[in-house]
Amino acid sequence: MSEPTTHALWGGRFRQGPDPRFWALNASLAVDQRLGRYDARASRAWAQALGRAGVLTPSEVEALTQGLARIEAEFAQGTFPFAESDEDIHTAIERRLKELVGEPALKLHTGRSRNDQVVTAFRLWMREAIDVLAHDVRDLMQALLTRAEADQNVLVPGYTHLQQAQPILLAHLWMAHFWAFARDRERLADTRARVNVLPLGSGALAGTTLPIDRAALAHALGFAAPTPNSWDAVADRDFAAEFLFVAALIGVHLSRLAEQIILFNTREFGFITLDDRFSTGSSLMPQKKNPDGFELARGKAGTLIGLLTGLLATLKGLPSAYDKDLQEDKDAVFRAFDTLHRLLPVVADSLRTLHVHADRTAQALDPATLATDLADYLVERGVPFREAHRLVGQLVQRAEALGVGLHELPLHELQAVHPAFQADVYERALDPRAVLARRDVLGGTAPRRLREQLTQARLLLEEPGPFGPEPQPEP
Amino acid sequence: MSEPTTHALWGGRFRQGPDPRFWALNASLAVDQRLGRYDARASRAWAQALGRAGVLTPSEVEALTQGLARIEAEFAQGTFPFAESDEDIHTAIERRLKELVGEPALKLHTGRSRNDQVVTAFRLWMREAIDVLAHDVRDLMQALLTRAEADQNVLVPGYTHLQQAQPILLAHLWMAHFWAFARDRERLADTRARVNVLPLGSGALAGTTLPIDRAALAHALGFAAPTPNSWDAVADRDFAAEFLFVAALIGVHLSRLAEQIILFNTREFGFITLDDRFSTGSSLMPQKKNPDGFELARGKAGTLIGLLTGLLATLKGLPSAYDKDLQEDKDAVFRAFDTLHRLLPVVADSLRTLHVHADRTAQALDPATLATDLADYLVERGVPFREAHRLVGQLVQRAEALGVGLHELPLHELQAVHPAFQADVYERALDPRAVLARRDVLGGTAPRRLREQLTQARLLLEEPGPFGPEPQPEP
Amino acid sequence: MSEPTTHALWGGRFRQGPDPRFWALNASLAVDQRLGRYDARASRAWAQALGRAGVLTPSEVEALTQGLARIEAEFAQGTFPFAESDEDIHTAIERRLKELVGEPALKLHTGRSRNDQVVTAFRLWMREAIDVLAHDVRDLMQALLTRAEADQNVLVPGYTHLQQAQPILLAHLWMAHFWAFARDRERLADTRARVNVLPLGSGALAGTTLPIDRAALAHALGFAAPTPNSWDAVADRDFAAEFLFVAALIGVHLSRLAEQIILFNTREFGFITLDDRFSTGSSLMPQKKNPDGFELARGKAGTLIGLLTGLLATLKGLPSAYDKDLQEDKDAVFRAFDTLHRLLPVVADSLRTLHVHADRTAQALDPATLATDLADYLVERGVPFREAHRLVGQLVQRAEALGVGLHELPLHELQAVHPAFQADVYERALDPRAVLARRDVLGGTAPRRLREQLTQARLLLEEPGPFGPEPQPEP
Amino acid sequence: MSEPTTHALWGGRFRQGPDPRFWALNASLAVDQRLGRYDARASRAWAQALGRAGVLTPSEVEALTQGLARIEAEFAQGTFPFAESDEDIHTAIERRLKELVGEPALKLHTGRSRNDQVVTAFRLWMREAIDVLAHDVRDLMQALLTRAEADQNVLVPGYTHLQQAQPILLAHLWMAHFWAFARDRERLADTRARVNVLPLGSGALAGTTLPIDRAALAHALGFAAPTPNSWDAVADRDFAAEFLFVAALIGVHLSRLAEQIILFNTREFGFITLDDRFSTGSSLMPQKKNPDGFELARGKAGTLIGLLTGLLATLKGLPSAYDKDLQEDKDAVFRAFDTLHRLLPVVADSLRTLHVHADRTAQALDPATLATDLADYLVERGVPFREAHRLVGQLVQRAEALGVGLHELPLHELQAVHPAFQADVYERALDPRAVLARRDVLGGTAPRRLREQLTQARLLLEEPGPFGPEPQPEP
Repeated sequence: MSEPTTHALWGGRFRQGPDPRFWALNASLAVDQRLGRYDARASRAWAQALGRAGVLTPSEVEALTQGLARIEAEFAQGTFPFAESDEDIHTAIERRLKELVGEPALKLHTGRSRNDQVVTAFRLWMREAIDVLAHDVRDLMQALLTRAEADQNVLVPGYTHLQQAQPILLAHLWMAHFWAFARDRERLADTRARVNVLPLGSGALAGTTLPIDRAALAHALGFAAPTPNSWDAVADRDFAAEFLFVAALIGVHLSRLAEQIILFNTREFGFITLDDRFSTGSSLMPQKKNPDGFELARGKAGTLIGLLTGLLATLKGLPSAYDKDLQEDKDAVFRAFDTLHRLLPVVADSLRTLHVHADRTAQALDPATLATDLADYLVERGVPFREAHRLVGQLVQRAEALGVGLHELPLHELQAVHPAFQADVYERALDPRAVLARRDVLGGTAPRRLREQLTQARLLLEEPGPFGPEPQPEP
Repeated sequence: MSEPTTHALWGGRFRQGPDPRFWALNASLAVDQRLGRYDARASRAWAQALGRAGVLTPSEVEALTQGLARIEAEFAQGTFPFAESDEDIHTAIERRLKELVGEPALKLHTGRSRNDQVVTAFRLWMREAIDVLAHDVRDLMQALLTRAEADQNVLVPGYTHLQQAQPILLAHLWMAHFWAFARDRERLADTRARVNVLPLGSGALAGTTLPIDRAALAHALGFAAPTPNSWDAVADRDFAAEFLFVAALIGVHLSRLAEQIILFNTREFGFITLDDRFSTGSSLMPQKKNPDGFELARGKAGTLIGLLTGLLATLKGLPSAYDKDLQEDKDAVFRAFDTLHRLLPVVADSLRTLHVHADRTAQALDPATLATDLADYLVERGVPFREAHRLVGQLVQRAEALGVGLHELPLHELQAVHPAFQADVYERALDPRAVLARRDVLGGTAPRRLREQLTQARLLLEEPGPFGPEPQPEP
Repeated sequence: MSEPTTHALWGGRFRQGPDPRFWALNASLAVDQRLGRYDARASRAWAQALGRAGVLTPSEVEALTQGLARIEAEFAQGTFPFAESDEDIHTAIERRLKELVGEPALKLHTGRSRNDQVVTAFRLWMREAIDVLAHDVRDLMQALLTRAEADQNVLVPGYTHLQQAQPILLAHLWMAHFWAFARDRERLADTRARVNVLPLGSGALAGTTLPIDRAALAHALGFAAPTPNSWDAVADRDFAAEFLFVAALIGVHLSRLAEQIILFNTREFGFITLDDRFSTGSSLMPQKKNPDGFELARGKAGTLIGLLTGLLATLKGLPSAYDKDLQEDKDAVFRAFDTLHRLLPVVADSLRTLHVHADRTAQALDPATLATDLADYLVERGVPFREAHRLVGQLVQRAEALGVGLHELPLHELQAVHPAFQADVYERALDPRAVLARRDVLGGTAPRRLREQLTQARLLLEEPGPFGPEPQPEP
Repeated sequence: MSEPTTHALWGGRFRQGPDPRFWALNASLAVDQRLGRYDARASRAWAQALGRAGVLTPSEVEALTQGLARIEAEFAQGTFPFAESDEDIHTAIERRLKELVGEPALKLHTGRSRNDQVVTAFRLWMREAIDVLAHDVRDLMQALLTRAEADQNVLVPGYTHLQQAQPILLAHLWMAHFWAFARDRERLADTRARVNVLPLGSGALAGTTLPIDRAALAHALGFAAPTPNSWDAVADRDFAAEFLFVAALIGVHLSRLAEQIILFNTREFGFITLDDRFSTGSSLMPQKKNPDGFELARGKAGTLIGLLTGLLATLKGLPSAYDKDLQEDKDAVFRAFDTLHRLLPVVADSLRTLHVHADRTAQALDPATLATDLADYLVERGVPFREAHRLVGQLVQRAEALGVGLHELPLHELQAVHPAFQADVYERALDPRAVLARRDVLGGTAPRRLREQLTQARLLLEEPGPFGPEPQPEP
């Protein structure tokens, strides 16, 4: 990109053109060219609004509309011809438009500013990006649900503090992650509503002097409403910060899921094996099969947190309607989107293709995870819970001392601790499947309750939400 | 707090009590005692649910209900008697309850775990905290609206890049901040909906074996619904992260407002003076009057960003239903709440009491801020905007060279640049008030449009939103 | 704390005292009272410097010196009597000093400002805090070294991607963590050098008009030098940010160590058991023994990252020599210090007391971790490494298919893949101890090299570094 | 980049090649190709070390050395031919090397792993990057010093809380920023020492079995020493985090400087004007001249903070010697480097070319900034400072009420407040230049002291530090 002597767009009052290194620093085209399609679309609507306002003649509007439609197509096809002198996406489009339609191109910028223009294109882009991510998240939810349906009978240890706690169904665990992503999808919907507002017509900061019908303009571009205050319209980047927060939280959820997969996939746990297609090897160690995809998911969660932090720190303390600092917004948002749009499908397909070792998970279960049920057994027979807890703690110690599982303690050992223990204790409290079935409360891991959950989840996935269809091509 | 030989709650299987320094690190009472009132309330509902489930007798329920009501009152009055041995708020309440009602206290913990218990109390607390902050934010919005109503006729320079851009009404600027906080209030409402879900009954991770009606329990505690998955119920801290994000964004908005006030309050701008009651002096320099309140608002925005970042980093990669790492959540949330609950009223009252120097703001306006209107004047006479922009850029240079304001350039100078300039240009394009009135688009700064905005804002403030009344005492 | 009508320190030009809520927000005493001892010490040196400068009479200096010594003692003993009206630690000390010595107290603030005063006290505090942490880190390094010495013969799987990679000595792993903390100690030393510079004498921002010998003052307070620029002296908080960075990195190292311990302590790995004194149980599940200390270490790493982020965001964009935003520095630094000073000894003692199950670790080793050595065997016999890697990969598959360990493959199976395999392969390449001994390169896990490492580590621990003795009482 | 059926490097034990989307996610070439030159250089040293260890024949070493030298040259010239199948920079180089030298290329990877290989190349790159940044920072320091030399006589208001506090020399303010960057340069030196350590020879995690002389290898590549522990060598990314911290702090310093420039460049302050070559205009408002460069400096400070936060969050809790999460390190470090390497020269040149309006700065000085000196005047005449402060506060109020400057109050007004005021007060305490000269303490703003500072700064700039010459081409 070469720098002009004095600047085409704003050089009138300048005696010298920009310094080359300053110019390179200032140029945003490398980042914002991604907005090309959206800026062209918004410009088309603006040309028509100028026509309705009597600022352009019908033939000017027609020329601009056709030129911009062609430019949109060029962006969609990747054939838009950038020029050395283009500073940002807006100047590139205006320059191209002049090549295509001549003089009317010089009238397009009437009544608008790059301040309202760029944030309009950005909101259009982000609306589609949210729709794409909502689709990706939904696909991951679907993969988790499919897994849960497949693993309904797989008994696994449930963990707290990474210590075995109580037996659960593996399907129950998959569903725990399902609901986390369901909340993320809700958040995407909430954010979308705050994205979907039209700033165009706010000018540089004070509004335009032209009789633009902003409500009609909003409607033409599919926005729910125009922004209520022109200063706020160009200054506000809440929606970008909110998007980055939702992205960071999706990242956190991916990283928690990833950590679980990475653990279950170790030789030591041995609960699952990742498919070869979603594993990598080592250049040195011939035996290695590594869960790189999930490690990246975990690692990129950190990066996503950093993108959010960075933008919030940038936004802090800005005093004007528009300060150039705001230019940092797009790179962060694009990177967050790309990160998730690459990660989510890989995670979903990795889940779909992994192999569960149901025999290993059942064997792995420590009989001591039935201790709570042993205590509950006493409670049902009138022992206060605190006392029952203490007594069972002693039984756990006793079993350890004898080198047997809790379920292998003979009845007389149990009765030595409390006479309420009877022979039915083995069936009622010391059989993992029986115990599981008794966690029969809404949200519990009992098979009956799990089926309820699966039904609830299927219904949720059928709800489209406020999202549009996944756009083609991607933003 | 002293450490026990072996632990009262869980020491059954342990041979040694905890190391004192480990114990001190592990104890959370200093932080979570703030949940006391809420834990007692939830325990009361739990006792009743245990009664309905047939686990407790009516008289046990009655005893527990009364004991817990008394404990709630003790917390409300600040008279709850903590003991040396209390590890966390739950053990403190159970210990106290035993003092008050005896043996039934030992039965209260039946079927629940600290995992579902603490997050239930935390959600109850946070629901109230959100209501308090929504009230605080609303009060600040009210203060901004009141300012806007008072400053409807005050002409000020509008800024982009901290350079004077176009004239606006000061009221328009206050309203720009109003809408930012309005979005924050929306976000608080969205977060509240995700907070207001009941985890109790999820046990440690797998659900309870008791026939608890969780829907009824949710209703009793004012929650919208029970959580759908017991693992997720104890693992989920999304709501805390989301709260911290909303808090950080409120902080960012406060810091942008603060930066503006700090600038306007300088000798160099001189647009406003803070009231003595909201200024501080210097221990060394007798003349100083400093805007400490707004500087703290700006500075604490950084701290709030850090609280969010910290929790997100903590949540990343956790593998279990409940890991102890989650204990970091409460301190962060409490600090964010306290920070904002202290800041917001001070900012609101500082705004209410500041003095605007309308004469200074009008004088400060650079006539060159009318350049856009001068260009628009040419556009209306058929000059393409790009060309008009360039010509006016030359006029700006010319005025600078002559050492006069743009509005003081004689007509022949204007006509030397373009013959379309006529005598009416001074009235139409070079009078700030006239120019202002022509920004007559939805969201623009024209007085007529500003009045529309004020009306819209008043209506918004009348909407209660999903928030409860501000609780007494504060959470 | 009550608010005065107009302020004692700076109220001269004010017509009204501060608003109570503003006053509460502004007051920093709750945080900065911790600086009391250091502020009194610096004030004592200041009084003497004022004496040397001829501003105070010898008897005034004497009175102030004695009064301040008493105040220092009061802080050390926790008996300093705070008053309702104290705004910050400086006003509290000045008020107390006046009570103790009368009129001369009013002269102490001559030529200094709270701006240079607070940062001087803060640097004094931080110098001691760094010494304390350097001691804590050294103690943890000592614990790791002691562990390494004890676990020199314990064979464990080494991991990459949490997949077994190659056999190593457990001692080698402990030492890996040792070196990370050694770097942290270096960083503490680097930071200490930048902390240990005297700002006092810089006044509010421009220097003092009194003939103060700042070099002598620096010497009196143990600082290496005075700051070279008075504006920078009061504006600079780099040292606080740097401290928070070093703290965050220590946190990250603790969290990586913690993650390893948490994994090794699971039933699934089973490599170690934490001592009862450093474990906790569950209120619900009688069998649980949880590694809460290490989970807190991991979780608090997130909080420490947030403290750093928060201060950096606060520092960004501040324009003046001193802005009130800087007040956020102390709370962050105090919290980081307290967090680490509580964590580090618990982690060290947890390491010292844990039990290693050397039998389990040896059994756990997957024979396939010898694959690299099998490839090396071929390389030594002239096969290019890439080819050897591919062939051994096939052997790994073959062993899996046969359901045997790599070391159990009969020679003919090996030779079917490459004829260079001979009978000595089992001894040379498929015996973990032999293989281990061959990692005989500087820094490698061979026992001989490990002993070198231990020696190097012992020498390092003997170096005192630039740190002072651990102060009593703690800062 | 196409995915192979099974992988060339590690496919031996795999039955299926990677999924295309997983493969795309996993590939790091887009980022790490920047390491090409450094990886080739390290590989050359490795080939020679393998030769010395007897693993390669002299002619193999020769072939590899020449091939790698050519590859290095290709990277330097930007002509390295990437292939579709390249996964990362290491596979690309190995593939190219095979094209160039045939079979010996297959032997190069003997005894090393990508784990030690990548971190070696990264450290080599970072060492050069630090040298480049040290040069950039030095250049900015030089620009500040040059400005200070030029602006030695320019009187400006000094600010605290953005309120005029005391008169200072503009040069003093430039020097305040100088010292902040001087500290950054020290930190770069400290970090460089921790970067400049050789990991190669650590293998995947346990060391290599080949008799590699790592000390000689370190020497050959210019490293100060080899790493002491092979696990730590591949796991450690402290140096990257430390680099990001130093980068973030440089960003913070740039943003504080930028904020000052942005303010001084406003119409309201009017102290400086940026050169046209370092300003931009507006597409809408013909009169605008915006300080975009400094706004970007301020904004990018936020982004730099985010990069640091992101990596710290990523590093947290990683359990293995090498986890794939670590791959996030390079992108963050590269981005931080590029950001600063673009920003610093622009900021330096913007400073060099800006215009100072010394008349405006002097006029802007509020006479009330002499209040401290008025109090000092009384102190010199025996009034305790606290009392003097209070009395001068009243004079400030009095001057305001009379609408005159503090220096314009007639003597009788001064004497009405305290009889010690005499006619010499105007010359001694109420003349800004006189007052300035009296801030004659080390680090103070008195011209004499400023000259001392300039001398000290010039000496500092002559010290080369540990940095190498700026490399060509840039890393």
